[in-house]
Amino acid sequence: MAKELKDLTKRSEDYSKWYNELVVKADLAEQSPVRGCMVIKPYGYAIWEKMQQTLDGMFKATGVQNAYFPLLIPKSFLCREAEHVEGFAKECAVVTHYRLKNAEDGSGVIVDPEAKLEEEFVIRPTSETIIWSTYKNWIQSYRDLPLLINQWANVMRWEMRTRMFLRTSEFLWQEGHCAHETAEESEKRTVEMINVYADFAEKYMAMPVIKGVKSANERFAGAVNTYTIEAMMQDGKALQSGTSHNLGQNFAKAFDVTFINKENKPEYVWANSWGVSTRLMGALIMTHSDDNGLVLPPKLAPLQVVIVPIYKSQDQKDAISKAVHPIVEGLRKKGISVKYDDADNRRPGFKFADYELKGVPVRLALGARDLENGTIELMRRDTLEKETLPLDGIVERVERELESIQDSLFNRALKLREENTFKVDSYDDFKKRIEDGGFFLVHWDGTTETEEKIKEDTKATIRCIPLDAEEEEGVCMVTGKPSKRRVIVARSY
Amino acid sequence: MAKELKDLTKRSEDYSKWYNELVVKADLAEQSPVRGCMVIKPYGYAIWEKMQQTLDGMFKATGVQNAYFPLLIPKSFLCREAEHVEGFAKECAVVTHYRLKNAEDGSGVIVDPEAKLEEEFVIRPTSETIIWSTYKNWIQSYRDLPLLINQWANVMRWEMRTRMFLRTSEFLWQEGHCAHETAEESEKRTVEMINVYADFAEKYMAMPVIKGVKSANERFAGAVNTYTIEAMMQDGKALQSGTSHNLGQNFAKAFDVTFINKENKPEYVWANSWGVSTRLMGALIMTHSDDNGLVLPPKLAPLQVVIVPIYKSQDQKDAISKAVHPIVEGLRKKGISVKYDDADNRRPGFKFADYELKGVPVRLALGARDLENGTIELMRRDTLEKETLPLDGIVERVERELESIQDSLFNRALKLREENTFKVDSYDDFKKRIEDGGFFLVHWDGTTETEEKIKEDTKATIRCIPLDAEEEEGVCMVTGKPSKRRVIVARSY
Repeated sequence: MAKELKDLTKRSEDYSKWYNELVVKADLAEQSPVRGCMVIKPYGYAIWEKMQQTLDGMFKATGVQNAYFPLLIPKSFLCREAEHVEGFAKECAVVTHYRLKNAEDGSGVIVDPEAKLEEEFVIRPTSETIIWSTYKNWIQSYRDLPLLINQWANVMRWEMRTRMFLRTSEFLWQEGHCAHETAEESEKRTVEMINVYADFAEKYMAMPVIKGVKSANERFAGAVNTYTIEAMMQDGKALQSGTSHNLGQNFAKAFDVTFINKENKPEYVWANSWGVSTRLMGALIMTHSDDNGLVLPPKLAPLQVVIVPIYKSQDQKDAISKAVHPIVEGLRKKGISVKYDDADNRRPGFKFADYELKGVPVRLALGARDLENGTIELMRRDTLEKETLPLDGIVERVERELESIQDSLFNRALKLREENTFKVDSYDDFKKRIEDGGFFLVHWDGTTETEEKIKEDTKATIRCIPLDAEEEEGVCMVTGKPSKRRVIVARSY
Repeated sequence: MAKELKDLTKRSEDYSKWYNELVVKADLAEQSPVRGCMVIKPYGYAIWEKMQQTLDGMFKATGVQNAYFPLLIPKSFLCREAEHVEGFAKECAVVTHYRLKNAEDGSGVIVDPEAKLEEEFVIRPTSETIIWSTYKNWIQSYRDLPLLINQWANVMRWEMRTRMFLRTSEFLWQEGHCAHETAEESEKRTVEMINVYADFAEKYMAMPVIKGVKSANERFAGAVNTYTIEAMMQDGKALQSGTSHNLGQNFAKAFDVTFINKENKPEYVWANSWGVSTRLMGALIMTHSDDNGLVLPPKLAPLQVVIVPIYKSQDQKDAISKAVHPIVEGLRKKGISVKYDDADNRRPGFKFADYELKGVPVRLALGARDLENGTIELMRRDTLEKETLPLDGIVERVERELESIQDSLFNRALKLREENTFKVDSYDDFKKRIEDGGFFLVHWDGTTETEEKIKEDTKATIRCIPLDAEEEEGVCMVTGKPSKRRVIVARSY
């Protein structure tokens, strides 16, 4: 472990390499033999489980229920909504057969040509189509609305360039699919869910986000409007962390889902969908971690506190263990997860490096000298600062430190974002400064042409029109045409 | 709802039809447009979530961690273990292409022939192959063992005849995959997990099970030994509810997974795998439910108590609501889920029928007369018996009733099984009596030929050799050859 840690590339050397190495070295995930798909290892999965549980509770608190829809989507369903198929057909895994058989020449197993499907299926890249074909049978009257349903599922998009957690062919996510009586109600729910995501990102992931609206170009395929939360990573790039789409009546029309409204007239249902994925793991890693490894906000850390004994004899170890016991008990009683690592086969130095790599928020170390003095050493993973503290009251102190770490991580990330967010009015200036990363608040004329020019010139895209953007008369930095508010432009993951 | 309930086929008329109707009418699941795949509706999914959470906690208590492996398996992986491919190749969904495109004749979207995969993938029917190909990199030394990993996932087997929850092409399950140092340790874990399943079935599902070993014929493809839990449904048929497989070194050999053992010598790793699926939903429904609808054990009921007010005026309703409030509070404080259904748009009779159909274990009804008398009506879903009770102490009484329902359901199911389990020694006798269902304890000569003859003659199979079978000298009921213990033969789902 100590060796592995030493080998970790520094962020300043190669941020991208640092990320890829960290994912593997911290035991979060690894490449699988299946192109573009990863294996999520137990430690990584434990973090994802914490995210899932928290989000699931937040969804349910707003009245959402979970359900499960089929993995496979008939090809014809995917094609019903014109923009939707345009957006997803190019990256589908296609199931064409339902059986293998022994090759006649004895060379092994082949796809049985007799088992060709009449209609092919695609593995869901997202489930609007299969879900709206189902909703048709569930919705007759306004009394059946709203329908507030979420699904936790795997999805697949045949990505050409993949990176673990950030962009993989298969990924895990949740997708909410709501049906409403009115356009207003659906819009309200669309915004409510982007607010849930923002709350989760800020309060649990300790990751500040900017809520905004996507430009037409960056909208979900089939949506009328897409809300997003955008976070800044340590290298100044943006990461889209969650989206909520107002789908208008597009899918209701494509799947002929109507209801009898309160005026006793048939009307197409109003829809929205919203999702976050294992991509959040990438966001979490890149927001907080450092050259020593992972840094985790206490609220999502599978293990919040580790206690390492430092001893030279069994007698010393016994005495330390006896002193540690009530600390472990006290922390557990407060709902804090803690491990007392008294394994003999690894030296304290190795353990320290390992838990640093894994991002355990608080480390306590207790030696024979400490025991004499009635003290204990506490290290915070976020600052790597050590402090010798009285044993007495250590449980309460750890509890306060965990809260403090959660807050500090958020504030540190917010400070980074603020220091790297710039108002720019000259396109030449922008083109120079974008090289160093950061969020750029610029005036834009609102056209797709200009957006595409910016992308072509600089690889940067319009991340969003912030919801809290102030009205401000200005001119587009590219074309000089009038603009009413600034948008955020950045390079992104 | 009342109408739907009246329409429910009686078990005595057509048990199979009753089941299919109940799954739909109780809002548990429905057929999807994808052949053999179902949509699990919110109420059904809420029950599955309770099962998942409970099982997940039980697994973790034995040291198991969760992880996630890819959905797709390269065709060549599936073929590495000879028996395994034999068992699964015939029922695979095969991915052959990774893109759709517009047809040149404008007729719609077609599979892009240019996007043909070099090697096809199958959608996992089970994950031994992809997991053992991964474990090869995770295991070097005995220090890396045991590896105790579980995954919650969807899997797909292209079944020809499907029934909701019992046998569907796609289903949800968990699959545990453990790697051990010794054959003994792996065998111990295999048995430990079948015991976990049996505990879950009996303590949470209130479903008595028989633990046993499968005959060679019924073993998992690639296993050395398969343990099973078998439950009796109300029609006397068996339902295999969970299996745990000792895989010996078969997969380690197929994927070349060796470790340096304590004697410093390379050795193949010892493996087991174990799983339960959404099939348990079918088992739960068929064990307890009746002609009025679903009957759920309180420990798995999404809603344990419903309170229905009976009123003629707003004043009466207000007075009732005031009296109900502390009951709701009291129940919630005890961790009991409760709903006060004071909706005005459905009459009490409709509500009663609906909650009966949904299997809510305890129903409380409170009217104006009750309020005067300081009483409340309690109905148990399992017996449909009503009792008028003092309002005072009702919270504690409900708590006791829930425990009592949980126990009664188990005892009722156990009694049914005991009354329908028969020792039979004559094959003619067996052939007659198998028509009426039940478990038959018979002597069998241990050969696959005899097992297949029984199946051909009677559609019954050897469900298992019970773990607690007593040694008893006897002769095979079919061939007259010697046998040392009785096995259980039954028709099954």
